[in-house]
Amino acid sequence: KDRFFVIAGPCVLESEDLALRVASSVARMCRELDIPYIFKSSYDKANRTSVESYRGPGLEKGLKILERVRSQVGVPVITDVHAVQEAAAAARVVDVLQIPAFLARQTDLVVAAAKTGKPINLKKAQFLAPWDMFHVVRKAESVGNRRIFITERGTCFGYNALVVDMRSVSLLSRSPYPLVFDATHSVQIPGGQGTASGGERQYVESLARAAVAAGADGLFMEVHEDPDRALCDGPNSVPLNEVFAILTALKDLYETTRKHPIRLQNEPVLRTA
Amino acid sequence: KDRFFVIAGPCVLESEDLALRVASSVARMCRELDIPYIFKSSYDKANRTSVESYRGPGLEKGLKILERVRSQVGVPVITDVHAVQEAAAAARVVDVLQIPAFLARQTDLVVAAAKTGKPINLKKAQFLAPWDMFHVVRKAESVGNRRIFITERGTCFGYNALVVDMRSVSLLSRSPYPLVFDATHSVQIPGGQGTASGGERQYVESLARAAVAAGADGLFMEVHEDPDRALCDGPNSVPLNEVFAILTALKDLYETTRKHPIRLQNEPVLRTA
Amino acid sequence: KDRFFVIAGPCVLESEDLALRVASSVARMCRELDIPYIFKSSYDKANRTSVESYRGPGLEKGLKILERVRSQVGVPVITDVHAVQEAAAAARVVDVLQIPAFLARQTDLVVAAAKTGKPINLKKAQFLAPWDMFHVVRKAESVGNRRIFITERGTCFGYNALVVDMRSVSLLSRSPYPLVFDATHSVQIPGGQGTASGGERQYVESLARAAVAAGADGLFMEVHEDPDRALCDGPNSVPLNEVFAILTALKDLYETTRKHPIRLQNEPVLRTA
Amino acid sequence: KDRFFVIAGPCVLESEDLALRVASSVARMCRELDIPYIFKSSYDKANRTSVESYRGPGLEKGLKILERVRSQVGVPVITDVHAVQEAAAAARVVDVLQIPAFLARQTDLVVAAAKTGKPINLKKAQFLAPWDMFHVVRKAESVGNRRIFITERGTCFGYNALVVDMRSVSLLSRSPYPLVFDATHSVQIPGGQGTASGGERQYVESLARAAVAAGADGLFMEVHEDPDRALCDGPNSVPLNEVFAILTALKDLYETTRKHPIRLQNEPVLRTA
Repeated sequence: KDRFFVIAGPCVLESEDLALRVASSVARMCRELDIPYIFKSSYDKANRTSVESYRGPGLEKGLKILERVRSQVGVPVITDVHAVQEAAAAARVVDVLQIPAFLARQTDLVVAAAKTGKPINLKKAQFLAPWDMFHVVRKAESVGNRRIFITERGTCFGYNALVVDMRSVSLLSRSPYPLVFDATHSVQIPGGQGTASGGERQYVESLARAAVAAGADGLFMEVHEDPDRALCDGPNSVPLNEVFAILTALKDLYETTRKHPIRLQNEPVLRTA
Repeated sequence: KDRFFVIAGPCVLESEDLALRVASSVARMCRELDIPYIFKSSYDKANRTSVESYRGPGLEKGLKILERVRSQVGVPVITDVHAVQEAAAAARVVDVLQIPAFLARQTDLVVAAAKTGKPINLKKAQFLAPWDMFHVVRKAESVGNRRIFITERGTCFGYNALVVDMRSVSLLSRSPYPLVFDATHSVQIPGGQGTASGGERQYVESLARAAVAAGADGLFMEVHEDPDRALCDGPNSVPLNEVFAILTALKDLYETTRKHPIRLQNEPVLRTA
Repeated sequence: KDRFFVIAGPCVLESEDLALRVASSVARMCRELDIPYIFKSSYDKANRTSVESYRGPGLEKGLKILERVRSQVGVPVITDVHAVQEAAAAARVVDVLQIPAFLARQTDLVVAAAKTGKPINLKKAQFLAPWDMFHVVRKAESVGNRRIFITERGTCFGYNALVVDMRSVSLLSRSPYPLVFDATHSVQIPGGQGTASGGERQYVESLARAAVAAGADGLFMEVHEDPDRALCDGPNSVPLNEVFAILTALKDLYETTRKHPIRLQNEPVLRTA
Repeated sequence: KDRFFVIAGPCVLESEDLALRVASSVARMCRELDIPYIFKSSYDKANRTSVESYRGPGLEKGLKILERVRSQVGVPVITDVHAVQEAAAAARVVDVLQIPAFLARQTDLVVAAAKTGKPINLKKAQFLAPWDMFHVVRKAESVGNRRIFITERGTCFGYNALVVDMRSVSLLSRSPYPLVFDATHSVQIPGGQGTASGGERQYVESLARAAVAAGADGLFMEVHEDPDRALCDGPNSVPLNEVFAILTALKDLYETTRKHPIRLQNEPVLRTA
């Protein structure tokens, strides 16, 4: 929790080549900026709006790509699991397991992921109040896992819309676990393109800056070489060639923020048991 | 879609005796009122707020109880499934499979349930716009299942709160499939009791009446002999001894409503392919 | 509170002729249906989205038209006031004074209207919780006025959107004062047409039915001979030639609803002091 | 728009002494930090939740206090006006006129304030989408006033709750006019204390930091020597003895933010005609 870090990659694994190119580009930028980096991509998008959308290469093929990224680029990798039986398989390859936001309340999935012993990233459901995430955290802790990330990614706000409440970032960053701000899913317009979600890429950077200033420990960002041709979440993905400038600013803001302790604040929450 | 019907029962299977008593009481009332009745109860609450809450008897034992209700009381039964592998087992016993609201976007689960050939009840997620439910319906239709119920159960409205939008009832009731209004989950206060959801039982009846007047085809209601001692969703469950009066009024309203065709309305939506 | 009633008319006074034609048509229908009727139209739309929109004939000319409607058609009239100094002037002509929803919290305006001794209709602000309307009611009561209507007209729900919460209808209908449901402003899309509000006329009827079933005592409805050419709120206005059928159904629903007392309910609220 | 500034003071004028003490304290801090400062306080709270709450000294007496602050402390002052006829009187004393958020859509009030020729601060209504504020701005511009501030102060989010959408700060900061973030009204809990609004002071600072990082030009903050005894908005007011540290951090963040131009962004909006 004492160093700004980044989780980034294409939303879904489109090809090994793309994964390797994005991972090594972002890794290079992060080395230059001295920012720890975790590569993220999904082997399966299990909850697409439409049954006809691209879902990814699947568990087996996807894990192979992630393994290649890990060994070839030399960065840790994170991916999301969608069913109890996927947790163990994914844990053999990746460094961090992620619970998708829609599945944050599925006890068995959270527990199965936590039981692997791997660090887990718990995404706050769009339908949950910030303080209710602590019950999700307790589910992971209940099997002895204390290597937890919590990720804020926006909250339901009317239909086909999300809003990011920076009070959530502020509150959740007071736990013992790192609070990640997912800047690209936060600008999704769920269902906004009829058979797919739209997005407002133009707000990614402002929201990321705001979250860092409000206390976020790390940043999550979907990155693509050519977002308009991405097979998933293109409208909210960040073009690879903007990543360096964005991270430069965020790191500077992070350091400025940390120089000034907050005066008016909640008591630290969620002390581990 | 031309007859008012009811889905009701205790939220979770607490014991075989309770299930049989509730089922036979409600069945008797519904026979007297000439209302088709489906018994509902869950063998597993897979998404409780807290990891310590009661979850139910589990798949195997739960299905046995449902089978007993079915044969002994002589009513069809419905239950919800939470993982792909549960669908086939549950389909061997129950008459209708239900997809929980939080899982409405999990493609594999919807498809697995639809593939069993059983009728399925698709609950609208709290985080989905009404029109986006049609993508969920398409997922079920994609494997040839046309025996579908859609259930409205409230929408996110700030933190720890839901609101029921009767436009959703109106819109979704224009599909070829029956639209069910879930009057008790709609008055949940998610996370409102700290480690469990609260509820506003005092609004169940007004909302149910409103939904029937807005076009709902059927009613879903959690019923318990002693809601204050229910192991799940007590604060929003309806006491068994109020059910007859509530249904009497709803049936009368349903019939009055159907006498007067709506004048200003959307075109029928979601014609089957 | 023991008889279904209607408040209706064109949103804004466009011309004396239109006002007289709409008033006498609706009056005729209401006589046939035995429904008390109050004509409503505004002399000034003081809060249009755009500074360039039509605002109405103004206080003086508008009150003359309302006086003519009153005497010539023989129906009571209601209009809204927007500033303290308008209350007394309007009270000399109209039968009921209305406080616009956006101004529900302006103490001086509510008090000035209440002091005229005329009945007043307090519209619930889009930004207020139902229970907070009772503070508005207290402001009117504080100067001795006990002839109060409360009107529900939808609540903020994300951007450029409203939702009607039927719990509000249910709760507010338990006061000693009649609860009116404003079915046409409730389907407004605020700001939804760029420089004006849009509307979803297709939901007016379903929402009105739902509100009556949830306990509403009366209905408020903007009516126009040709809504597409209305100078204000056209997209949510009801065509005059649909009014009779709509009211017929609502009266039937009202009577069916009142035959069945609610079983699960809040205690009566807001007893007068 | 090229220098961070602060608007601050007690919510309502409680006494001349308090006003002078707060104004001179904050003025001293701001001089030390080289931050332009405008003193703000209200002579009348015209929209209190309850009719029994303290409203302030009134127009005449209040303007005298503001005049004294102006001349004695040597800082510009801002106050809000609530009716057309107050605009000219207030403009004779204060440096900036403010339109309250609830009244943002009242055309006559905005126009009357703009016509005085004084700079005006337009607060975004809790019920308006960010982009709809530009129609409010046009109303002021329609009479030739181009000295405008826009203030974000939170948006309706369910009942008795607000949320701050940093996209609004980002979007509105792209106009030619300074965008102010009102950090204390943004943490109000409207109606949250029964007969008064509550507040979450513990989020003031995090939200202010986030807003500055998202592009806000200035900060608005209610300040009190002893917030727990403030006659209005105590729960969200900032204690005077925390102001210096808060502003120090915000200025540092402001400067860091401005060093890094945003890459992904909306086109500049609302060019003056």
